[in-house]
Amino acid sequence: MFPTKKVQTLIGSVVQVEMKGDKHTLEGKLESADEYLNLHLKDTYEIADGVKSRSLGSVILRGNNIIMLSPIKQ
Amino acid sequence: MFPTKKVQTLIGSVVQVEMKGDKHTLEGKLESADEYLNLHLKDTYEIADGVKSRSLGSVILRGNNIIMLSPIKQ
Amino acid sequence: MFPTKKVQTLIGSVVQVEMKGDKHTLEGKLESADEYLNLHLKDTYEIADGVKSRSLGSVILRGNNIIMLSPIKQ
Amino acid sequence: MFPTKKVQTLIGSVVQVEMKGDKHTLEGKLESADEYLNLHLKDTYEIADGVKSRSLGSVILRGNNIIMLSPIKQ
Amino acid sequence: MFPTKKVQTLIGSVVQVEMKGDKHTLEGKLESADEYLNLHLKDTYEIADGVKSRSLGSVILRGNNIIMLSPIKQ
Amino acid sequence: MFPTKKVQTLIGSVVQVEMKGDKHTLEGKLESADEYLNLHLKDTYEIADGVKSRSLGSVILRGNNIIMLSPIKQ
Repeated sequence: MFPTKKVQTLIGSVVQVEMKGDKHTLEGKLESADEYLNLHLKDTYEIADGVKSRSLGSVILRGNNIIMLSPIKQ
Repeated sequence: MFPTKKVQTLIGSVVQVEMKGDKHTLEGKLESADEYLNLHLKDTYEIADGVKSRSLGSVILRGNNIIMLSPIKQ
Repeated sequence: MFPTKKVQTLIGSVVQVEMKGDKHTLEGKLESADEYLNLHLKDTYEIADGVKSRSLGSVILRGNNIIMLSPIKQ
Repeated sequence: MFPTKKVQTLIGSVVQVEMKGDKHTLEGKLESADEYLNLHLKDTYEIADGVKSRSLGSVILRGNNIIMLSPIKQ
Repeated sequence: MFPTKKVQTLIGSVVQVEMKGDKHTLEGKLESADEYLNLHLKDTYEIADGVKSRSLGSVILRGNNIIMLSPIKQ
Repeated sequence: MFPTKKVQTLIGSVVQVEMKGDKHTLEGKLESADEYLNLHLKDTYEIADGVKSRSLGSVILRGNNIIMLSPIKQ
């Protein structure tokens, strides 16, 4: 299964996303994703030192600035 | 709804945008957006430490340099 | 009006452009722009601490390295 | 053999991937790769100073943020 | 004239190119350029503090990593 | 000759490649290259302070993260 297809299977579940910039890690419910890995997350939190540090709500993330995306085991 | 479509629904409202570079955060009224997430904002302000620090007026933002986009609850 | 279209309306006027890299700000007369936001500026100056610091003449800027573009009120 | 084709031959084996950001090195089993070098890795570990430092499980990596990819001799 | 077309007019003359990375400036004779602004330079020198510091000979530059390109008046 | 075509002429010979990241320089035999300048190198070495510092073997390099590519005179 291609990587972008794999991401489609994660829609509806909580994912962790590492963005470019100063080691910016986010966690939220994946609402949608397109072929460029642009993402729409809901109930998003910024993660600092492994814990939720700031509530961001609904956010759009630009695909090319995503370093890594992984499912959260809950 | 795809992420870029979600952005279209934000046109006319105030959004916060985090750009690449030294943690550059902007806030402005979203005038238009295209499929690459290039944005045109009006009444734009630079945000530093959570407060409006500098008025930028009308600005064009290059989509690939957007880290994160989110609606502002007003 | 789409962002890239908005940029077309700025041709012939002076714009300020913030590039990637160490907070590199330029000011010049917009000669041309394409759909990728590649720009050709004339009479370009580097701006440091809000003042013109270095004359660069005619320059080509690569669109993907543009953070922000805005018209200069004169 | 083109570089992206060469990557296809590595599917099923363990690869090391250096990502953009602060010298972020990962090691994992290559599950899939597409033409943009987006990757899906399983049993992924972060590598620090040459040793496995953190287990990441299943991860998706965005192709444009990959600096270098190489097979691991086992 | 579009920016990439303007670059075509510089073929055969000496140009200065500022690359991404730690303020990497190069100077060389423009041999060829394509629509992505990938460049082939000959007799290339690295420029440090405004003077030629290192001879690089024939180099290929990846367009997306070019910040700025300008003709050198000789 | 277009830059990407010029790169094709280097296949089979040793090239030096400067990657994004902390001034990451590699040297290896160019096995293949595609239109995006994705590269496959063999017998690759990391170069530090002008000398071979670490053997990397067979590596795939993502084109958009290449700053500069040049032939090595041997």
